[in-house]
Amino acid sequence: MGDNKAVPSDRSRARYEQVLDAASTCFRRYGFHGASIAEISKHAGMSAGHIYHFFENKEAIIAAIVNRRVEYWITLIAQFECADDVFAAMIERVAIAVDERAEEEFVGLWLEILAEAARNPRVAEVLQQADLRVRTILTHVIEVAREARGKKSPIDPAAIEIMMAMFEGVTNRAVMNPGFEHAELARVLQRAMASALDE
Amino acid sequence: MGDNKAVPSDRSRARYEQVLDAASTCFRRYGFHGASIAEISKHAGMSAGHIYHFFENKEAIIAAIVNRRVEYWITLIAQFECADDVFAAMIERVAIAVDERAEEEFVGLWLEILAEAARNPRVAEVLQQADLRVRTILTHVIEVAREARGKKSPIDPAAIEIMMAMFEGVTNRAVMNPGFEHAELARVLQRAMASALDE
Repeated sequence: MGDNKAVPSDRSRARYEQVLDAASTCFRRYGFHGASIAEISKHAGMSAGHIYHFFENKEAIIAAIVNRRVEYWITLIAQFECADDVFAAMIERVAIAVDERAEEEFVGLWLEILAEAARNPRVAEVLQQADLRVRTILTHVIEVAREARGKKSPIDPAAIEIMMAMFEGVTNRAVMNPGFEHAELARVLQRAMASALDE
Repeated sequence: MGDNKAVPSDRSRARYEQVLDAASTCFRRYGFHGASIAEISKHAGMSAGHIYHFFENKEAIIAAIVNRRVEYWITLIAQFECADDVFAAMIERVAIAVDERAEEEFVGLWLEILAEAARNPRVAEVLQQADLRVRTILTHVIEVAREARGKKSPIDPAAIEIMMAMFEGVTNRAVMNPGFEHAELARVLQRAMASALDE
């Protein structure tokens, strides 16, 4: 699919990010198909030509949005490896992860990306490649945590899958039952994760 | 929001269902905003006037789609109460639930409904009311199962919430990691549910 045309230099990085922010807002508000390049350029405060300098089309923008989010997750997960107690660090971070996953702007954007991926194989491919990277680093860090606790067996890939499903589900539940206390959710999620990690 | 204009008689029930099926296909393929009443009427093989006989607008159609799905879930959950071993019946059903949650047509439609609910408060309201009904019956049936097992304490509402999040998450994961074996997912979900129910 249409990758970024130009790898942004430091100088143009701010404008590149500006396009991603504007596009995120537009995709969330109007949907992927309802958000035109014209609308995105208006929100970004720059010309459509400037946007086309960075991105071939809207699919390339959505790919960059997915990859930006995933870079954030990967950096976060990788940091656990440096913690004194990897296991405890992961469990402790669950509360913030729940807040992030249920945060209104994230929820709207992420659900729009998933809905588009469900009908657009090119967007699905971007999401699947990104997910593979997250899953790989997550599995690696969990193995490190398990080894430190003397576990001999590798973690069950299905346990990783269900763990990731729980966090995905928090996003959907934020739409379906928005009043639910995040701290309560985090408490049960922490318990479920602790038992999955330690099994 | 625009409720059904007419409660369908047995005679018109088939045509009513036909509209919901056609609209489900159109919402999934073109998105809620991309699917026009004209397109839905073409897919349903009936006039737009006929559709307006049943539904005031597209939001009323999406409400009926959500409620049809929820009626199915509620009927299913209510049936567990009649099982000899309520607990075992629920756990056993998880494998089919995973298949249903990851089924391509359901995934595309459900994600589109959630994405629309994230930006449209009237659709969000429909989803939240429907979710409350599912949650209420699910909590009731779990309490029955717990009583039969001699549990004195009620189930933690956050445990119900995480249980529902896991099933929601299976739908998202079907887009992000479509190759994952459903039977493997079901096995881990059954274990997680068994421990949540029994806690």
